[in-house]
Amino acid sequence: MDTHLPQTCLKPGERLDNLIIKGYRIIQHEAEFCFSLDAILLAHFATLRPGGTAVDLGAGTGVISLLLNARGAGKVVGIEISPAMSDMAARSVAVNGLGEQIKIMQGDLRRMRELLPGGEWELVVSNPPYRLVGGGFISPNDRVAMARHEVTANLSDVVNAARFLMKFRGRFAMVHLPERLSDIMYTMREAGIEPKRLQLVYPRIDKKPNMLLVEGVRGANPGIDVLPPLIVYDAGGKYTNDIVRLYGGEKAFRLK
Amino acid sequence: MDTHLPQTCLKPGERLDNLIIKGYRIIQHEAEFCFSLDAILLAHFATLRPGGTAVDLGAGTGVISLLLNARGAGKVVGIEISPAMSDMAARSVAVNGLGEQIKIMQGDLRRMRELLPGGEWELVVSNPPYRLVGGGFISPNDRVAMARHEVTANLSDVVNAARFLMKFRGRFAMVHLPERLSDIMYTMREAGIEPKRLQLVYPRIDKKPNMLLVEGVRGANPGIDVLPPLIVYDAGGKYTNDIVRLYGGEKAFRLK
Repeated sequence: MDTHLPQTCLKPGERLDNLIIKGYRIIQHEAEFCFSLDAILLAHFATLRPGGTAVDLGAGTGVISLLLNARGAGKVVGIEISPAMSDMAARSVAVNGLGEQIKIMQGDLRRMRELLPGGEWELVVSNPPYRLVGGGFISPNDRVAMARHEVTANLSDVVNAARFLMKFRGRFAMVHLPERLSDIMYTMREAGIEPKRLQLVYPRIDKKPNMLLVEGVRGANPGIDVLPPLIVYDAGGKYTNDIVRLYGGEKAFRLK
Repeated sequence: MDTHLPQTCLKPGERLDNLIIKGYRIIQHEAEFCFSLDAILLAHFATLRPGGTAVDLGAGTGVISLLLNARGAGKVVGIEISPAMSDMAARSVAVNGLGEQIKIMQGDLRRMRELLPGGEWELVVSNPPYRLVGGGFISPNDRVAMARHEVTANLSDVVNAARFLMKFRGRFAMVHLPERLSDIMYTMREAGIEPKRLQLVYPRIDKKPNMLLVEGVRGANPGIDVLPPLIVYDAGGKYTNDIVRLYGGEKAFRLK
């Protein structure tokens, strides 16, 4: 909890966490989906031109929108379907005084044409729901589950929304599950977004990867650059230098 | 050079190398394409049922056919387009007295229907030419270049030949370049061979991968198992234990 900023913007159950980078703060709710390592990795993985425009599909708490701004983006728009989450993300933007640079919009990425103009954005990022909806029922009141499962948008929905937004040669960066790799490669290429960069995130050097980072370019030729492995924990169970670097050398904020 | 076997089977410039596993020998030619780590990795990566049938597309020296036999395959057929290479591979099979189990056929995998019956093979493997043919001319007399570039068969040719041969739920395993990952995923799925296992081979823990191993199953559902990273050299420049294990703990034969 940060004590130097006014608490009036917080609702019951919410806390103000420290994003470290540039001193940014972020509002999170104890019982809701809080951002985790995947969001941090994606925000740093995406290729960003200084001053470039970006759209964050499924913005959640707004963490990626804030980090893209911190990395030097110009205008960033975060799209979030949940009214409660988008309201919280918008208040995080306000707390940091970034209302001119970051706009949080409540909306459904499956109806992107009604929300934003197409074909003009330099970068689209997404940390989408990862998991296929299986046999089990997921309550629309369970917002944590909805942030994890493809209830409100599936992979094709996300890729098609990105394709609509991107300018020619624009980029689309996503964090997702390794088990979906074939789906991702296939769906991106079918949409005309050629996968150009891939990094697999391994929790330890001897484990299977549990995340992947991928970036595609609209209209590019085939040929993908697969980066060195990103290892999260060393043999002693501590963050590797690669990960510590992303956190600015501090660990002041909470990770799930 | 092995001195315990008759040398009469060797032609000028050829040598008899030790495959270590089960004492198998292999004929290689100093000036031609010799097998390397990629072939060893593929032969061990492929899912093989004891006694199962296999086809090796682009058999080259026959190293993969020999190793699949050593791992317990039943009938193995190696297809090789170069008359000189297929003749050499057939002599390697004869040297090991494996003529009943391994058949080397000279033929063009683009005309697979004329060579072998379709829809009945349990496993198809390929260590195909990796590189796209660029602007430069590749002489048909340069057999090393032809083994490396897509002159005689491209990725689609290899995948389509595999698809023709495989039984339903049969497997296709391939070693290839990471930069072709998207092409591979897309081409396999388009052919009805769903990618199910992937391993990236990194020369060192901090380097980009320089090989990938992939296995698909005909008619399977989407969802791929990405394996732990395979690291080739440790920090001191020596083979890691994972690699030493593949060589049976010895390094008696030459690697390129």
